[in-house]
Amino acid sequence: MIMDPWSSQTVDYKKIIKEFGVSEISDDIRQFVVETAKSKNVNSKWFTHNIIFSHRDFDKFIDAHKRGESIAILTGVKPSGEFHFGTKQVIQELIMFQKLFNAKTYYCVADFEAYADNGKWIDETSETAVSNVADVLALGLDPNNAYIYRQSMEPIVQKFAYYFSRKITNATFRALYGDKSFSLYLSALTQIGDILLPQSDEHSGPKHVLVPVGIDQDPHLRLTRDVAEKNGFITPSSTYHYFMKSLDGSQKMSKRNPDSMLTLSDSDDDIKRKISKALTGGRDTVQEQKEKGGQPEKCMVYELSYYHVENIDELESRRQKCKSGELTCGECKKEIISKLITFMNKHREKKKLYLPLARAIVEKGRFDGQSKEGQEMIKRYLVKI
Amino acid sequence: MIMDPWSSQTVDYKKIIKEFGVSEISDDIRQFVVETAKSKNVNSKWFTHNIIFSHRDFDKFIDAHKRGESIAILTGVKPSGEFHFGTKQVIQELIMFQKLFNAKTYYCVADFEAYADNGKWIDETSETAVSNVADVLALGLDPNNAYIYRQSMEPIVQKFAYYFSRKITNATFRALYGDKSFSLYLSALTQIGDILLPQSDEHSGPKHVLVPVGIDQDPHLRLTRDVAEKNGFITPSSTYHYFMKSLDGSQKMSKRNPDSMLTLSDSDDDIKRKISKALTGGRDTVQEQKEKGGQPEKCMVYELSYYHVENIDELESRRQKCKSGELTCGECKKEIISKLITFMNKHREKKKLYLPLARAIVEKGRFDGQSKEGQEMIKRYLVKI
Repeated sequence: MIMDPWSSQTVDYKKIIKEFGVSEISDDIRQFVVETAKSKNVNSKWFTHNIIFSHRDFDKFIDAHKRGESIAILTGVKPSGEFHFGTKQVIQELIMFQKLFNAKTYYCVADFEAYADNGKWIDETSETAVSNVADVLALGLDPNNAYIYRQSMEPIVQKFAYYFSRKITNATFRALYGDKSFSLYLSALTQIGDILLPQSDEHSGPKHVLVPVGIDQDPHLRLTRDVAEKNGFITPSSTYHYFMKSLDGSQKMSKRNPDSMLTLSDSDDDIKRKISKALTGGRDTVQEQKEKGGQPEKCMVYELSYYHVENIDELESRRQKCKSGELTCGECKKEIISKLITFMNKHREKKKLYLPLARAIVEKGRFDGQSKEGQEMIKRYLVKI
Repeated sequence: MIMDPWSSQTVDYKKIIKEFGVSEISDDIRQFVVETAKSKNVNSKWFTHNIIFSHRDFDKFIDAHKRGESIAILTGVKPSGEFHFGTKQVIQELIMFQKLFNAKTYYCVADFEAYADNGKWIDETSETAVSNVADVLALGLDPNNAYIYRQSMEPIVQKFAYYFSRKITNATFRALYGDKSFSLYLSALTQIGDILLPQSDEHSGPKHVLVPVGIDQDPHLRLTRDVAEKNGFITPSSTYHYFMKSLDGSQKMSKRNPDSMLTLSDSDDDIKRKISKALTGGRDTVQEQKEKGGQPEKCMVYELSYYHVENIDELESRRQKCKSGELTCGECKKEIISKLITFMNKHREKKKLYLPLARAIVEKGRFDGQSKEGQEMIKRYLVKI
């Protein structure tokens, strides 16, 4: 079975856990996260709602954190379009981990991958990168404890790609990714560079690094774990979330199908329209729904509420009300639309404040919030809130 | 027929001209070079002695020069060892062209290729790179009109490699180079980046670029010509020389066979020993040689004299004296040894003067002799001669 990070597809999660050898989130891990989150006043719904469903060596990362060792967190997104809600989710995970572990957090603008995968050269994606980085900051990444960079402007990442090009055979590439273009294999090598960047000499050497991603990125993790082990790095840890489905219920949310997903640049009207058209688990008539109740397990709006109703009890109460027929689809949609519009209005306001800093970061190509230069950029470009 | 730039091999030059579609040096070209050389007091033995035997679009490059257009010259060498005399030759060609055309001349320290091909990572080759660059300067490259860089520290080259990774299929790589490792294909992409560097926006855009190389490098030229044409660059021109054979007559000189080649780091004793052991076209006995004469066409010392006897008449006179039995092998070797030792002593003295500048260039990774910074480096590090 080949999981291909470059295609949208439906996923059999049970099969993945079994075949890829990833681990389910244990009760111990969940308990640790939820309790730490509570003590730090951080929302941990990705764990309470079981959206992050599996991991590799997350326990080892937690142990390193408990021992007070140097750790880091990293994820990356292609600047191939405005963030959709699936991307927002991984960024929110990143931010949750930054708060939980108080560790330096890396955000990679994967512009070389956007080129390899979508054919948009780095000058075509720089404006999108500015918007993406502003979203990341507006969602809550603390720039004072962050490293933000573009693949195309980070020589360490490129050097790693060259270095590991000699350690991986064409056969390994094919086994992991299927028969792909040279360019996509090169982009896989570049992602090894991304994941190992926090362990480079320039970033104070080997450390435990946690990489929150979608399960489709696991081939990159497997490849990196393999070469890390053989080349003096600490094997990276990773967490995996379920894919948010698209609003028509067809597959994972994907930038390739813009009509069926919410994005962070949607207007209020976009949200209303998209949610109104979304696939639900409603019955053919109101009468039938009142009698038989709704089917939340089939409903994309219920799925959305998984990501936007913070409290697990409230979520369960919604499910019960739907199943009993008490909560109609119209009312339910109205409530979710209202929640989303409130969130989006706040987000838009915040994003405006972060745009100048985001632009400066993207233009510079590399930003270290802990460096003198980074601190000066924050002072200069971050409009005081 | 696949010419593989990564293997040492004997070469059928007639076949190459026919199959690769390279052009022989025409009388017009030779005449232009020799006359220009004479007027500028430059040695043009690579053309008078027919060592540079073929080219691609060298005539177009000359025409651009005559029209006064912006032009550049470029070659590169892996820092995988001390320069052998085959490498010295390509550097001397580069320097001849710099003088003939008074054009900005690029020297690439191909450290990524040294890694891909020889497995030496860039930190292992940096000392060799210093020695190589000092050799290039001591041989006569004018740093005031030169750009010298390491592949690993030139982001423009790396960006080109990524850019063109999407324009070339695995099938094209295989057709051009045979079934090689991912790493060598990546190194081929990097060489496209090298060859197009002088045409990048940062280097004032499209221009005619001349690339003097050994014929084994032609696959890189063909690949670059192909992508250049399709992507708004001017098709590069190239010249090709015969390979200097190794002293045992077995194949082209190669860093892989250090005992049978002269290098720029040889001591006087090394030179004496190596030349004394070299394969000649001598007869079994002095008596027989006096009667039948020597066989210069089989003699590696005669071949060496091709590269070290500047005057074509003197060369011809040596050949006649050999064939008539007048010049014995012992005497001939003695003369060549003396010529080489004189050259090497001068070279060693010059190289000492250039080492500090070479070290500064390699440490910096990029050096532009025409920039303010480059001029300051020359002033600071170049010991006045």
